[in-house]
Amino acid sequence: MYTVDLNCDLGESFGNYVCGRDEQILPLITSANVACGFHASDPLTMEKTVEAAKNSQVSVGAHPGFPDLVGFGRRNMSIPAPEITALVEYQIGALTAFCHAKNIPLQHVKPHGALYNMAVKDFLVADAICRGIAAVDSNLILLAPAQSELIRAASQNGLKAAREVFADRAYEEDGSLVPRSHPNSMITDEEEAVRRVIQMVEKGTVKAVTGKEISVKADSVCVHGDSPSALSLVRRIRRTFKERGIQAAPLQEFWRHS
Amino acid sequence: MYTVDLNCDLGESFGNYVCGRDEQILPLITSANVACGFHASDPLTMEKTVEAAKNSQVSVGAHPGFPDLVGFGRRNMSIPAPEITALVEYQIGALTAFCHAKNIPLQHVKPHGALYNMAVKDFLVADAICRGIAAVDSNLILLAPAQSELIRAASQNGLKAAREVFADRAYEEDGSLVPRSHPNSMITDEEEAVRRVIQMVEKGTVKAVTGKEISVKADSVCVHGDSPSALSLVRRIRRTFKERGIQAAPLQEFWRHS
Amino acid sequence: MYTVDLNCDLGESFGNYVCGRDEQILPLITSANVACGFHASDPLTMEKTVEAAKNSQVSVGAHPGFPDLVGFGRRNMSIPAPEITALVEYQIGALTAFCHAKNIPLQHVKPHGALYNMAVKDFLVADAICRGIAAVDSNLILLAPAQSELIRAASQNGLKAAREVFADRAYEEDGSLVPRSHPNSMITDEEEAVRRVIQMVEKGTVKAVTGKEISVKADSVCVHGDSPSALSLVRRIRRTFKERGIQAAPLQEFWRHS
Amino acid sequence: MYTVDLNCDLGESFGNYVCGRDEQILPLITSANVACGFHASDPLTMEKTVEAAKNSQVSVGAHPGFPDLVGFGRRNMSIPAPEITALVEYQIGALTAFCHAKNIPLQHVKPHGALYNMAVKDFLVADAICRGIAAVDSNLILLAPAQSELIRAASQNGLKAAREVFADRAYEEDGSLVPRSHPNSMITDEEEAVRRVIQMVEKGTVKAVTGKEISVKADSVCVHGDSPSALSLVRRIRRTFKERGIQAAPLQEFWRHS
Repeated sequence: MYTVDLNCDLGESFGNYVCGRDEQILPLITSANVACGFHASDPLTMEKTVEAAKNSQVSVGAHPGFPDLVGFGRRNMSIPAPEITALVEYQIGALTAFCHAKNIPLQHVKPHGALYNMAVKDFLVADAICRGIAAVDSNLILLAPAQSELIRAASQNGLKAAREVFADRAYEEDGSLVPRSHPNSMITDEEEAVRRVIQMVEKGTVKAVTGKEISVKADSVCVHGDSPSALSLVRRIRRTFKERGIQAAPLQEFWRHS
Repeated sequence: MYTVDLNCDLGESFGNYVCGRDEQILPLITSANVACGFHASDPLTMEKTVEAAKNSQVSVGAHPGFPDLVGFGRRNMSIPAPEITALVEYQIGALTAFCHAKNIPLQHVKPHGALYNMAVKDFLVADAICRGIAAVDSNLILLAPAQSELIRAASQNGLKAAREVFADRAYEEDGSLVPRSHPNSMITDEEEAVRRVIQMVEKGTVKAVTGKEISVKADSVCVHGDSPSALSLVRRIRRTFKERGIQAAPLQEFWRHS
Repeated sequence: MYTVDLNCDLGESFGNYVCGRDEQILPLITSANVACGFHASDPLTMEKTVEAAKNSQVSVGAHPGFPDLVGFGRRNMSIPAPEITALVEYQIGALTAFCHAKNIPLQHVKPHGALYNMAVKDFLVADAICRGIAAVDSNLILLAPAQSELIRAASQNGLKAAREVFADRAYEEDGSLVPRSHPNSMITDEEEAVRRVIQMVEKGTVKAVTGKEISVKADSVCVHGDSPSALSLVRRIRRTFKERGIQAAPLQEFWRHS
Repeated sequence: MYTVDLNCDLGESFGNYVCGRDEQILPLITSANVACGFHASDPLTMEKTVEAAKNSQVSVGAHPGFPDLVGFGRRNMSIPAPEITALVEYQIGALTAFCHAKNIPLQHVKPHGALYNMAVKDFLVADAICRGIAAVDSNLILLAPAQSELIRAASQNGLKAAREVFADRAYEEDGSLVPRSHPNSMITDEEEAVRRVIQMVEKGTVKAVTGKEISVKADSVCVHGDSPSALSLVRRIRRTFKERGIQAAPLQEFWRHS
């Protein structure tokens, strides 16, 4: 039987501003990447999000981002490595407080937005992130795409790294994502997206944008819940999982570092 | 032999902005109240401050404040109790990450500025703070003035509370501080300030602004290091401690909850 | 024929966060209170909002608030008067830039949230706001409730003040609003709300919460557009205006300081 | 007789944080680049800075920066052009309010830090800035280095641009600055710096880092006042100006767009 994690960004509301459909997506996923107050969220939102995740038996991970609230952490910033390390430590610590308060463990760390995208390509950024994670708690799992500098940096810093795949993104032959700027970067057909997820989970392969079958490692599937169509895709993935006997579970319940 | 803690606010720089004389005050104190990024400080400053405190064998406490950087956390804000609890949890957690990274324990929590002043008088604010501390780690010591709602709230939340006294402030007969707005609120004479500290530590008494001798509990003496005259006072306190055989030590090394 | 202004808060989105239904409310109002980046909004949102208001021939006013984004400017802050003056000047100036860029005049200023509520009751806050408006441009119209310290302060600072009434709020006999904490503070019945607006505009009277008819001055009616029911009320007000021959127009087109 | 402007960054304090030696530098300069609340400053600091500049008969310019307070606006951010335009408009408007309040004109705009450095090299950033300036007030003077995309963009947007030179920086043969990362980028000898300034003002030439004499246009000399040595250099420049009959005056008093 196959087991896989389903992760989704959560808790991105801020003060009076509501963002996302957390209540609807929570019953469908197994791990939540919770915003930590830099690119989104605030202390009260974090507390409520951790509580909601706990109530849905969804594992909690930190989702640290750049200090760019107005840009939602989606804009590249040239921040020196020691400061990246410090802001990752800070955000992990802040979220950990709410996990302590609710008596649940922090499971993983997944960088957000521009910080994630820069770290995928730039080892110095990836290394700065991994240093921060390792310094705070070396048992935390890094969630990152295969074929990324994040995976390399995790290895060098003695961190466990789980590989995530994307239901709605096309892959290059080397296993990296086709950049969003390219016309064929997104898998827009829901049925095809589900089929690809199943293949990635069951066979460990996917058809690259060039047509070639490549190997992928799918410890976790990254899904979105911020629109009706995104929710529809996740529901269909879960339904298909059920039909095919694929189990969805948080990383900490089944995944072992290899 | 008498033993007492000496606490001081630290790490209040922010990005490019330098605030305080941390390097000069660190060798003179035993506990540091470290700003947590809301009223002052930023992740890199927090990391450096925790490291510097460790190197000086100074114990570290969290110094959470209102989210009011431009007002340095010194302005009253009417924030609902659950949000105060959450922002205290957040800030404690953030600082704890740097303590983990440097492998030292977090010793205490002392609220900052307007949050502290409001909590001294308003039980609901005090209770909201104490709930936050207790939720994250009920072994943390609350540092607060005697005769305050903070002490009451700590007791109700099962928290240990250490009493701090002030070298440069006058006291009312009930043990509360004479408000700063009053003409005789400050002890400006350095010699007198030192004499009062010695009396509070050795005899547990101090002369109130009315002239009456009152009882005080001095687990920790709050000092400042942000001006030459403030540094001079602390140096003189330490010198007098040495002469009289009073030991200065962090709370965690000698203080037991009574 | 009666003429009255209809004002509504607008442009309160922030970065990635959407707030309000600006597109739906714009065709129904005559004056927009545009957020200025402190309690809500950001430069790009302000630019788009001013442009949208211009396209709908809606007059633009500044809606300055406290520097409290996470609290949406709804929490009292004890900010010294000179700083209130400066932050009102700053926000008016910032919005004026976008009015210049779109070649429309800035019509009025209406303080937001806690700043508005404090200024209604506290002359020092009201005076600080009016000093700021007068310093930047003494031709700007202050929009404020009758029977408020804001009106008194405007008079003392040589500012023109237009009176606004509320469709959905109950009044005390002295013309002040029944505090929201009271059970009968809101007019929840849509039909009754419309009837009250008509009476305030046509007769200059309204039934106070005590049952007594009192005089009110209705230069502008404050409406909301952030929910389907709020939009429904405004649509009904406009329809009834049309039926009764009441004209809705921006303050600058009909209102003269008396 | 030669006339030249001396410009300096000013008003970069923030709330409780003091930055720079504004009182000491003000009597020595003729134009102030005043921070506008994004990379530094706050409304009250802006008001005080504009007042102090007025009292010293120093002309005021806006110094808009990236929304990055913790990084002091010194870190590259990948912000889309329309948002750069809007944030430049916003900051110019905010400062203009204080100029109105003090009854002085806004003279110029000089972008700050990373925004300036990016605009020097990147036409899209430069164009976005110039669009913002032109939209708010096309009579504002852009202050920028010769041989920069800022000058090109100003020309295309119908803006007047004054050229600034740097007393303490080395030049390439093409008139651009030697990057700070290079070993010979700074002119550290005070006497040499003064000699270079005189030559740039009187002869319109300077010796490039290669040894070749090149042409430069010096409408304004950029100086610093944030350290004793920086102040010493400015004092020496002013003394030498006096000895040689070079007049220092704000751009608006002598400079005409060519």
